[in-house]
Amino acid sequence: MNAEIVAIGSELLTPYFQDTNSLFLTEKLNEIGIEVAFKTLVGDNRRNLTQAAQTALGRAEIVVFMGGLGPTEDDLTRECVAEALGRELNRDPELIAALYKMFAERRRRMSPNNEKQAEVIEDAVILKNNFGTAPGQWLEAEYENRQRYIMLLPGPPYELKPIFEEQCLPRLRKHVPEMFLARRQLRIAMMAESECDARVSPIYKAAEGVDTTILATGGEIQLHMRARADTKEIAESRVEELAAKIEDELGDYVYSRGEPLEDVVGLLLQLKNSTLAVAESCTGGMLGSRLTQFSGSSRYFLGGAIVYSNELKTLFANVPPPLIEQHGAVSKEVAEALAVGVREECQATYGLAITGVAGPTGGTPEKPVGLVYHAVSDELGTEVVERRFPGDRERIRRFATQQALDMLRRKLINS
Amino acid sequence: MNAEIVAIGSELLTPYFQDTNSLFLTEKLNEIGIEVAFKTLVGDNRRNLTQAAQTALGRAEIVVFMGGLGPTEDDLTRECVAEALGRELNRDPELIAALYKMFAERRRRMSPNNEKQAEVIEDAVILKNNFGTAPGQWLEAEYENRQRYIMLLPGPPYELKPIFEEQCLPRLRKHVPEMFLARRQLRIAMMAESECDARVSPIYKAAEGVDTTILATGGEIQLHMRARADTKEIAESRVEELAAKIEDELGDYVYSRGEPLEDVVGLLLQLKNSTLAVAESCTGGMLGSRLTQFSGSSRYFLGGAIVYSNELKTLFANVPPPLIEQHGAVSKEVAEALAVGVREECQATYGLAITGVAGPTGGTPEKPVGLVYHAVSDELGTEVVERRFPGDRERIRRFATQQALDMLRRKLINS
Repeated sequence: MNAEIVAIGSELLTPYFQDTNSLFLTEKLNEIGIEVAFKTLVGDNRRNLTQAAQTALGRAEIVVFMGGLGPTEDDLTRECVAEALGRELNRDPELIAALYKMFAERRRRMSPNNEKQAEVIEDAVILKNNFGTAPGQWLEAEYENRQRYIMLLPGPPYELKPIFEEQCLPRLRKHVPEMFLARRQLRIAMMAESECDARVSPIYKAAEGVDTTILATGGEIQLHMRARADTKEIAESRVEELAAKIEDELGDYVYSRGEPLEDVVGLLLQLKNSTLAVAESCTGGMLGSRLTQFSGSSRYFLGGAIVYSNELKTLFANVPPPLIEQHGAVSKEVAEALAVGVREECQATYGLAITGVAGPTGGTPEKPVGLVYHAVSDELGTEVVERRFPGDRERIRRFATQQALDMLRRKLINS
Repeated sequence: MNAEIVAIGSELLTPYFQDTNSLFLTEKLNEIGIEVAFKTLVGDNRRNLTQAAQTALGRAEIVVFMGGLGPTEDDLTRECVAEALGRELNRDPELIAALYKMFAERRRRMSPNNEKQAEVIEDAVILKNNFGTAPGQWLEAEYENRQRYIMLLPGPPYELKPIFEEQCLPRLRKHVPEMFLARRQLRIAMMAESECDARVSPIYKAAEGVDTTILATGGEIQLHMRARADTKEIAESRVEELAAKIEDELGDYVYSRGEPLEDVVGLLLQLKNSTLAVAESCTGGMLGSRLTQFSGSSRYFLGGAIVYSNELKTLFANVPPPLIEQHGAVSKEVAEALAVGVREECQATYGLAITGVAGPTGGTPEKPVGLVYHAVSDELGTEVVERRFPGDRERIRRFATQQALDMLRRKLINS
């Protein structure tokens, strides 16, 4: 069965807002075997919304409307869907009473326009909203002689998500053939997308019954694989077989089956009872910020130094000023000294350092924008990697942290 | 005039991809007085795409199709739009020659399926693509007896943007009445959205001819104001008058007319010939990362310390261990000591420190998740602010950096 998602709200037609609910809805619909065939975004405009509702009902078996269920004049979803279906809109006395009660409990006076939220399309089932005042609606109806499953959901994600999962999905499941979905994800660090695709596309294209999607951004590639089958076993074995083949092909470029790189590094550090300290120049704290994204990182991450100025490179990581004068702050030698220095200062097992030219200013012919040195140090020695990253400042900084984390990961799995 | 944007690509109907081109197109269309009435996302499916094209051509005067112009079987935009319009599709011999030339120059052999990219809808103008192989197309046509302006654009943003700006906008301008757009943006830090809206909505609702949009996220509110008028002067005076009224109402909550908070703080530090050092516990480097987002931050930002462990609080910021034992790492006293210590160690004019419980683990009844202390120190003294932020770890960390930057901003403008 095919679905259409209709997102309602004039803000969605400005340059400022993106609809993100539909990603969640798509994932959940896909899980039970429903594909999304169309998404439509339309403003709070009676004619346009009614038109969009008619179009959607004409071409999709399942139509999810979201947004436009509030109490203001601009909230037109109930009326427009009712009009598109040629059905009455009735005020539900129980819902009105519940609204007054809800406002009273919060010690607020309800303005009469809120009664609008108690309007229900003829024969619709009311979907209780535990996190807001606008209930959703579920409707099974014929449109142009074809069976349709229709949902009206509130726009705020924390209201929409529980209503959809708890009240819509179980109803939808009754009408779609039972299917099992299995998923795998492989994450790959510091590989060019074109190279990755050239190596893995012959493999995934030959895999029957598995959909594969490649996402690439900032030194990271995610391969998402999905298989649907009549039994759980078949679906699972299909994705597992493909994932294993791709892992064989890419070897240790694959760093996880879903966990972020920061997490993998943290796990490996814990396994080895090791600690980490960082010294960051051009990334200014981004590496530390990534390493502390997850609760519990204090078990292996001690902290470190943001050595943006040359003086702090000396103060916090004991880099000798003559070394900086001789080679420049962006150099193999200074990267190495930073990793060693911050490790020793902090008494960490590993020291990880980044120094580079993130741009857009500050580049020279010898040291162009994008040139970054990464160093990882332990008591046995220090390794430095020089890279030239393309792109803007944010992209270069993101790549630099990714490269540094990946170096540490490789050191941890190979030592 | 109204526009519809049709984004084409099966990946846009998965849980993984968002269409971002349409935000750019919306902004550019708005600038010349065209509103976007609908956005449609459709997959690489002949029937669905033709249907979406017919729907769009039926309801909008300007239709922008993007994506699906490549050489593969899945690239159906040309054929489906031609079919929707009932027009022929012809292969342009000059385009074919140009394609072969382009491949030869890159020393690559062109496979014959690339010739598909030379297919042009009857009477369409070819829009040259300097950054890829798929040219765009511009077409003025009647659909159901109504005049339509139709564009076919390639999907990659770096191809789409220059074609749209240089070749589509000048053509569109000829067909829309000349209008002038003026814009203002106000940025506001650390104010609740509901409070902000309660104070400013009576003002912007009373302002005639100005559209106002409020965006709120992570301790920051952006007010976007836009006015369109027959003359530049009228449009400018309308937004300026509203912006000034809102600035009067909100006072120093407004921190800029567009520049990010990091930038405003950097500018103020430069104006005062001052320098800054940071000590970060729960934010782990996020504050430093924000402060170094822009080239040139080395003029005022020295760096600092990521003091995730208690030992590093002592090592890098001279916090006495008994102080940590007595009050705990998350305390007013330790925040103060961190700001003073890092300022003195780094010989900076200002020291800025953050220590808190970012969660989700690590909270206690006395020190719950979300409790954060922020301290700013200069030679005259130190100020500490305690906050309780709601939300998840990322949100709490983002709020903490926003609060710290805003404290420093207020100190800089008031000293």
